[in-house]
Amino acid sequence: MNADLINQLQLVLPESRILTGDQLKDRYSHIWYMEDSLNALCVTLPESTEQVSSILKICHKNNAKVVVHGGLTNLVGGTETNADEVVISLERMNQIEEIDSDSRSITVQSGVILETIHEAVADLGLLFPLNFGARGSAQIGGIISSNAGGLRVLKYGMTRKLVLGLEAVMADGAIINSMKKIIKDNSGYDLKQLFIGSEGTLGIVTRAVLKLEEAPSSRNVAYLAVNDYKSVVKLLKFFDQGLAGKLSGFELIWRNSYEQMTSTSDAVRPPLPYDYEYYILIEALGSQSEQDQAEFQSLLETTVEKEMILDAVMAHSPSDVEWFFRIREDVNNLTDHMKHDQHFDISLPVALIGGYIKDAYKKLKLIKGVEQIYAFGHVADGNIHFIIGKENTGDSLRLEINDIIYSGLKAIGGSVSAEHGIGLHKKAYLNISRTPEEIQLMKTLKTAMDPNGILNPGRIFDV
Amino acid sequence: MNADLINQLQLVLPESRILTGDQLKDRYSHIWYMEDSLNALCVTLPESTEQVSSILKICHKNNAKVVVHGGLTNLVGGTETNADEVVISLERMNQIEEIDSDSRSITVQSGVILETIHEAVADLGLLFPLNFGARGSAQIGGIISSNAGGLRVLKYGMTRKLVLGLEAVMADGAIINSMKKIIKDNSGYDLKQLFIGSEGTLGIVTRAVLKLEEAPSSRNVAYLAVNDYKSVVKLLKFFDQGLAGKLSGFELIWRNSYEQMTSTSDAVRPPLPYDYEYYILIEALGSQSEQDQAEFQSLLETTVEKEMILDAVMAHSPSDVEWFFRIREDVNNLTDHMKHDQHFDISLPVALIGGYIKDAYKKLKLIKGVEQIYAFGHVADGNIHFIIGKENTGDSLRLEINDIIYSGLKAIGGSVSAEHGIGLHKKAYLNISRTPEEIQLMKTLKTAMDPNGILNPGRIFDV
Repeated sequence: MNADLINQLQLVLPESRILTGDQLKDRYSHIWYMEDSLNALCVTLPESTEQVSSILKICHKNNAKVVVHGGLTNLVGGTETNADEVVISLERMNQIEEIDSDSRSITVQSGVILETIHEAVADLGLLFPLNFGARGSAQIGGIISSNAGGLRVLKYGMTRKLVLGLEAVMADGAIINSMKKIIKDNSGYDLKQLFIGSEGTLGIVTRAVLKLEEAPSSRNVAYLAVNDYKSVVKLLKFFDQGLAGKLSGFELIWRNSYEQMTSTSDAVRPPLPYDYEYYILIEALGSQSEQDQAEFQSLLETTVEKEMILDAVMAHSPSDVEWFFRIREDVNNLTDHMKHDQHFDISLPVALIGGYIKDAYKKLKLIKGVEQIYAFGHVADGNIHFIIGKENTGDSLRLEINDIIYSGLKAIGGSVSAEHGIGLHKKAYLNISRTPEEIQLMKTLKTAMDPNGILNPGRIFDV
Repeated sequence: MNADLINQLQLVLPESRILTGDQLKDRYSHIWYMEDSLNALCVTLPESTEQVSSILKICHKNNAKVVVHGGLTNLVGGTETNADEVVISLERMNQIEEIDSDSRSITVQSGVILETIHEAVADLGLLFPLNFGARGSAQIGGIISSNAGGLRVLKYGMTRKLVLGLEAVMADGAIINSMKKIIKDNSGYDLKQLFIGSEGTLGIVTRAVLKLEEAPSSRNVAYLAVNDYKSVVKLLKFFDQGLAGKLSGFELIWRNSYEQMTSTSDAVRPPLPYDYEYYILIEALGSQSEQDQAEFQSLLETTVEKEMILDAVMAHSPSDVEWFFRIREDVNNLTDHMKHDQHFDISLPVALIGGYIKDAYKKLKLIKGVEQIYAFGHVADGNIHFIIGKENTGDSLRLEINDIIYSGLKAIGGSVSAEHGIGLHKKAYLNISRTPEEIQLMKTLKTAMDPNGILNPGRIFDV
């Protein structure tokens, strides 16, 4: 049966575009584990939407399971593959098809790497605002399938808001072409929404039209410090109102995380002393350098006058900006001294974050085996990351920690995954974020759109 | 069977919440045709999600068709009802459940009127940015079901971008509760997207959590004039870049439309002379009165210096602002002198609008029976409205006009409905906006989620 399947695939793909056996040795299923060879029935490397469609028609007819590969940076097991699974890797569909600077859109195949998009539009004074650490590897198809977020969601939105048009291939090979570059289209169901964030379980994204923004030319950055969470919320509202559309970052760092983040080298020396409970990194993007700086400074002064903050420092040069952001972004400063680490990506209503994290710290400290607890995150988006250092990788400790971080989320309308998705790794906790009726409806959709259950099987839920 | 159905409904609803027979005389199915009594089997007036669920369970079991009523302002026949159909009107579910000014969200039942939401949040310095002419009647359930747009889409997005959480009841009575007030949630499929813009065919929206914005406090408005469409696009990019998030309106009015809009009374006298081909109404919303005005004025001056415009006038008082907007918004100035009128709401890529409309004018002028042609619209959103004056209401003339406006849209990736939806009236043109595979997938979804086809039957497409 497997040999027969490969024979059938060979009829629709050039020989060099199907890898089997020893050819899989150089392939991996995650960018962090490049030393581990890929376990798969075969890897197919389509170069067109029609080839993706042909491959899927064959897999659908043969009930062959398919796992979709992009840049392999997924954080929840989305690209883990077994020996009986066909890999479809979009890496050869890596063409930028059009940049339309009047309609502010770029049309790309799904194998294009995020950073390539950034570079392609920069010279035109345009910006594709999605940005995160893995930009040099992550492909746009995977980014769309996982509705990635990142650093500038506050101003520009998650991936879902940046997709104007989409092409996807369904499990049976049908090509759904919704490749419009228009902003408004209320003609029937907005089908692209089904493929964004569904982790490749409802269809394979093959092409997209992405929204571009006019690039900002001014950037103002500061660290602020306060001692109570209520002040954090008040400051968020104050700057969001005062900066009227320019506020692009509002990152919160808890005191102990800040101390660790700023203590490993001079490159991350502390911009503010270790005297406060909360440190806020704030960023504004605008287009009038002088006025924007004056406005930002004046807003900061108002927070001092009104005693809304205890301390503040503004970046005065590009190297200051880099320094300020390096503190927040270089997660290695938190993990390097850990024996083992466990990461979280939860979201909850902004007003409730302070109390929730306080409570979690208290409970985590009581657990034997928990050695470090660091919280920080995109607080304006209600999105908090936790990194827990622990003494062993056993299931018992892992589950105990999960339980503390996740269990209170259901009652307050939070989510076990703000950005990273569910994949294979968070399946057991889906029912904290979602009701039984919601999960049933997900299954109804999956069954209707992929009746043989071949696409990224077992991701998000089991049918 | 009908009597039996009503008996069953009476078991789950108080007597006063089911209207039949003569009680329907005071009801209508559209706010523009209040003199026409409603034709329906009965009207049900649920007061809770559970009652909506109970009604739908009965209708599902009995294969009884259901039409959902909100504020009855729909423009594409969404609420037209027949004698064998059960109406579910959400008017009694009109409670604002919570305003959370920290998380910037409002939780409402779906019968709440848009203007009521505006008023409820204004005192808190917050804004629900969705706004359009029917705000005094339109209910939020219908607004969500039709993904309404309106005046400030450029800055704040259509309804889809403003819905954080949603509750909907499916055809079989299952309640899908996704009432989270969080901004990021990548835990499984984003089910609310299915109910937004699907015109009540996949479920009935019963409650929602809506995103609020900090209210802006400065508003700058101007009219600009140019003679070629390329300059329009250039100006859009210039102001979008220069105003960095504050640009909230960029409305284009074609010369002949402008002449008509500004000639009926002193209240709409022309702010600029009748010397140009295109008139642009531009609006910026900010929060620093003095700086914002100076910045807006300085950008205007730059457009003069760089010869990007031929003429401009800025509003210098709130009454100027009102005057400038009245010109654009009071559509009666266009329709009052028409024998009959036909309206359009198309969208297309921004860069192609100039040529497309020019061509449409040329073709329309050749048609016997076409008496006036007025184009104007939200050009930044690629959304143009056409109002055609014509001598008769015959099908032949109507279809001939439709053909000219719609037929070129397919080739350039446009849409026959930017904002208003498809409903019953635009069904014949759905295939211009969407491919056969897309329409097939819509039917697959409809069949999976409403297997008996009871919800708003015949809207968008026939199964």
